Amino acid sequence: MIEDKVLIVGLGLIGGSYAEALTNAGFQVGAIDRNRESLDYALAKGIITEGTVRPEKEFISRYRLIVSCLYPNTFVEWIRTCQDLIAPGTLITDTSGVKVPVVYEVQRILRPDLEYIGAHPMAGRERSGVVNSDCSVFKGANYLVTPTSANTQPAIETCKELGRRMGFGKISELSPEEHDEMIGFLSQLTHCVAVSLMTCRETSEMAKYSGDSFRDLTRIAAINETMWSELFLLNRDVLIHQIDMFVNSMEALKKAIADGDTETLRAVMRDSSQKRKQFEKN
Amino acid sequence: MIEDKVLIVGLGLIGGSYAEALTNAGFQVGAIDRNRESLDYALAKGIITEGTVRPEKEFISRYRLIVSCLYPNTFVEWIRTCQDLIAPGTLITDTSGVKVPVVYEVQRILRPDLEYIGAHPMAGRERSGVVNSDCSVFKGANYLVTPTSANTQPAIETCKELGRRMGFGKISELSPEEHDEMIGFLSQLTHCVAVSLMTCRETSEMAKYSGDSFRDLTRIAAINETMWSELFLLNRDVLIHQIDMFVNSMEALKKAIADGDTETLRAVMRDSSQKRKQFEKN
Repeated sequence: MIEDKVLIVGLGLIGGSYAEALTNAGFQVGAIDRNRESLDYALAKGIITEGTVRPEKEFISRYRLIVSCLYPNTFVEWIRTCQDLIAPGTLITDTSGVKVPVVYEVQRILRPDLEYIGAHPMAGRERSGVVNSDCSVFKGANYLVTPTSANTQPAIETCKELGRRMGFGKISELSPEEHDEMIGFLSQLTHCVAVSLMTCRETSEMAKYSGDSFRDLTRIAAINETMWSELFLLNRDVLIHQIDMFVNSMEALKKAIADGDTETLRAVMRDSSQKRKQFEKN
Repeated sequence: MIEDKVLIVGLGLIGGSYAEALTNAGFQVGAIDRNRESLDYALAKGIITEGTVRPEKEFISRYRLIVSCLYPNTFVEWIRTCQDLIAPGTLITDTSGVKVPVVYEVQRILRPDLEYIGAHPMAGRERSGVVNSDCSVFKGANYLVTPTSANTQPAIETCKELGRRMGFGKISELSPEEHDEMIGFLSQLTHCVAVSLMTCRETSEMAKYSGDSFRDLTRIAAINETMWSELFLLNRDVLIHQIDMFVNSMEALKKAIADGDTETLRAVMRDSSQKRKQFEKN
């Protein structure tokens, strides 16, 4: 039932990785990107069959399945300005890391003869651009689909099938609200923590003494500032709440240390060790 | 110049790893541990040649080089109660993760015909006990020596040579104060952060959605509560200061998010990415 042609809008790290995964899975993949060089790279690598820098009806309307790999605000803007170029009956999905502000806005402004369903591939890299794309990061990773009451069952199935065909390990369904609450903790708070740890003091003399602990906790402190600023602000209320919970937890630990309260410290650490077990990879 | 016999006091994860590394390096290694099974395991594995559960003069005085692999407070207590059993002229070193409260106290109470020099092997595991010991964790790791004005140059050289012979990658000299300030940030604060992240909220439903970021930031949240509580409290003032700096940094990030201040967010992230580069492994 799934279309055999897919149009990727935005050919960066994720767009390129999607193009590669979908080509490997037997899809014919086209791409739109404002950067000609990115298209040329993907054509030369054989992960797209055609590409254009200009969104034109003749090109776009050849596809019934479109995946936006744009940043969230850019995606909403693209729908606003380009949806008239899309063929009736086309299914649109995306890859943006926040859902509530994207999903409801796109579904609100979308033409009634089109359908959009949100998705979030939980995989990435500390680099950007199509030249760093690599679909092996999807292997075993989580692929989240965030349907609303506006979505049809066939669209939900097609979106999940797309994730499966690209090699994701686990395909889950969540509401946009559940998604943003979860991602605010698991992904956005962790990036805030890593950035704060990396920037809270002078560290130039410390690199030579660093063990793996500090390295692990700051791996994601090398961060794409354009994308993550946008993601943080689009999930502002959730993220602020997560930061508050975490800071309260730090302050409680500090109090136990200041009080010399060994029993509390040990109890928190036992709880921590116990909870961490659930996150071990299978 | 270095002795060819070493006595390990405390045969846990680090003691066992030292015994293995030193045996591999051609030393004859003896051990004291209150647990008979640990000694039997190490004897069977061939990483010690003799062991005793009871600290006796006849046994201990056969060695001119002693390495304590006890927790910090236990080490100070062991010196207090057992130093009369040690042969004159013996050099003692240790492995404890805090230095100021250990080094000055041991040097203060030590017999004048003995010498103690502090050391800290920056390597470990999220497990404990001699059965989990593995000297390959020392390969390329940092080995810190923390001499004071009470130490002689030959003792400093012997201590460094011990680190080299066990395969450590970098041998550095720091004052006890510099050590504790640095370790308060690079190691203790990171463990506080991981534990707080792991315990700040209910997470039982989240494991199935976790990506690598959260896993990396909480690897060390599986923590030995006895040892780390002791380390935190022995470095209390330094650690509280590090927590304050970090929390201030989190609060500043939160303010930028609350204010929708994209420019500040991007600037902090650029700074973070820049600083992280210095910590990349060679």
